[in-house]
Amino acid sequence: METISLQSPYDMHLHLRDTPLLESVAKYTAQYFSGALVMPNLNPPIDSVELALSYKDRIQNACGDYNFMPLMSLYLTEGLDRSVLQRAKEVGIRFVKLYPKGATTGSQSGVSEVLDNKILQILEYIQELGLILSIHGESNGFSLEREAEFHSVFTELAESFPRLKIIFEHLSDHRSIALVEKYSNLFATLTLHHITLSLDDVIGGGLNPHCFCKPILKTPKDRDALLQVALSAHSKFSFGSDSAPHLKENKENGKGAAGIFSAPLVLLGLAELFEKHKRLENLQSFISDNAQHIYSLPKSAKVINLEKKPTQIPREFDGIVPLFSGRELSWSYT
Amino acid sequence: METISLQSPYDMHLHLRDTPLLESVAKYTAQYFSGALVMPNLNPPIDSVELALSYKDRIQNACGDYNFMPLMSLYLTEGLDRSVLQRAKEVGIRFVKLYPKGATTGSQSGVSEVLDNKILQILEYIQELGLILSIHGESNGFSLEREAEFHSVFTELAESFPRLKIIFEHLSDHRSIALVEKYSNLFATLTLHHITLSLDDVIGGGLNPHCFCKPILKTPKDRDALLQVALSAHSKFSFGSDSAPHLKENKENGKGAAGIFSAPLVLLGLAELFEKHKRLENLQSFISDNAQHIYSLPKSAKVINLEKKPTQIPREFDGIVPLFSGRELSWSYT
Repeated sequence: METISLQSPYDMHLHLRDTPLLESVAKYTAQYFSGALVMPNLNPPIDSVELALSYKDRIQNACGDYNFMPLMSLYLTEGLDRSVLQRAKEVGIRFVKLYPKGATTGSQSGVSEVLDNKILQILEYIQELGLILSIHGESNGFSLEREAEFHSVFTELAESFPRLKIIFEHLSDHRSIALVEKYSNLFATLTLHHITLSLDDVIGGGLNPHCFCKPILKTPKDRDALLQVALSAHSKFSFGSDSAPHLKENKENGKGAAGIFSAPLVLLGLAELFEKHKRLENLQSFISDNAQHIYSLPKSAKVINLEKKPTQIPREFDGIVPLFSGRELSWSYT
Repeated sequence: METISLQSPYDMHLHLRDTPLLESVAKYTAQYFSGALVMPNLNPPIDSVELALSYKDRIQNACGDYNFMPLMSLYLTEGLDRSVLQRAKEVGIRFVKLYPKGATTGSQSGVSEVLDNKILQILEYIQELGLILSIHGESNGFSLEREAEFHSVFTELAESFPRLKIIFEHLSDHRSIALVEKYSNLFATLTLHHITLSLDDVIGGGLNPHCFCKPILKTPKDRDALLQVALSAHSKFSFGSDSAPHLKENKENGKGAAGIFSAPLVLLGLAELFEKHKRLENLQSFISDNAQHIYSLPKSAKVINLEKKPTQIPREFDGIVPLFSGRELSWSYT
């Protein structure tokens, strides 16, 4: 039987929520990944070292015996103090996440005006400390243009802070690819859902809340362009699932929380996709090597073996409807 | 207090469903309109004169004492017989509705290939009888391109059947306006929701199933272009609400039925909109005169008076969440 071995997989964009949802979802990433960059958009946000460290403790407890490294991030609020950043660096927290206020789930404590002087001073200090800046890059304009409208902010930041490593998270628009390629200090993550689905999976048939996420899935042209970037294992792009669990009742209550839960199956989905496009040899780079280079991460001893044997994805995991719910994928964990 | 009088309003695209929903919704249109073109997409579809006439009876019963004329339509199935069309004409049924198979609610009995010879022969006979052809004009492609991709079908039909009156229903894409203007035998309807909302009302914040409809709401640019057409009372465009009720539970069950219920408030919404844009003097044409000319309809004695006094739109009507649910509109029925 055909098998592949993925060495030290990293998920560079992950939502683990908090207790009790944390206990439902953390084990999947902990089992299949060496480490993951954990997003700080809880309520209240993880905007202090103390909150980050206690969250890290809860995550590690939820992960049990799996050999897994949660990479913690700080939430960039408008009042984020230099001393907090300095202390973060001292305790090994290397990531700061910037949310434009109102852009997505848990962004209400985010930044109103990224290019405001106060924020630029914070970013200057983040550069000085050598921390990495992760950005949810969307304007508050028309949904299909939000990512492209945010390009000017990336341009300004990439040019103003040439030594700051900036991550353009969860790329969804084909126009963003050229921007990432243009600046040596700009990198990006790609999700499984943005390279496999389009807006039609949300609105094309009936309305499907389980494929609703931010940034919204875009056109088939966007999806296909991003897929080619992933398949080619472009060295500036690493995998970030943006797995973002919501209980089914919060998806189907007529208000439709944004986020797609994919953690239990992302490696299976990626294996199927890369094999279908005859690029299986590039999966290792996309799932780990690129991240090791971009984020200076260690290669752990963890190896995830997959075999070419069908897996039936459950309709739900603990009350959460996952990506590819009820579908059969062609690979299995061994 | 400021008042306006609307004489003989017509709704040229309406879904009344069937018992028991029919009894909940029919009274609104019956109260405020002289007549309405009733869509035949029931299950089973209204594809015979007998079904149309018995449906008309049920509608009239549900409308009670209101002076209201349901304009019945026949569902164009691939097996629609000439004798049915002839009989329809004899009993005064003047409209035939074409659905591409799978395009929207109740379209499973629709047409697989509009330009197929068998269908063209049916259309030829519809032209010969002088009936009016109403079309849900969408391809099965990517949702935002479906209407534009259907233009070639309209072009072919408009050129092949120059004496056939063809209605391009519920325009949603600004590119369709020029097409309607190009052919003398092509006309269109406009809904209130497509000239006031955009895709952001569905996916821009949380996911809102109550603004989900087909054709899907499009960009602000599309909305604004269609609004200008309505405000100018362009003579080839008449009002068709496409009011399409679904019970709240069928909107919020994670499958999201397509359709927006607007019948109780469309005249109020239109008055507010036309006044805001200082075109109140054009509302009479948009709501009635254009339809009288395009469809050769009588001007009835019915007059609907509105006054400039706020109306609070209920959150629900009989378990159906309406357009502008819970909002205050600036006009009232007297």
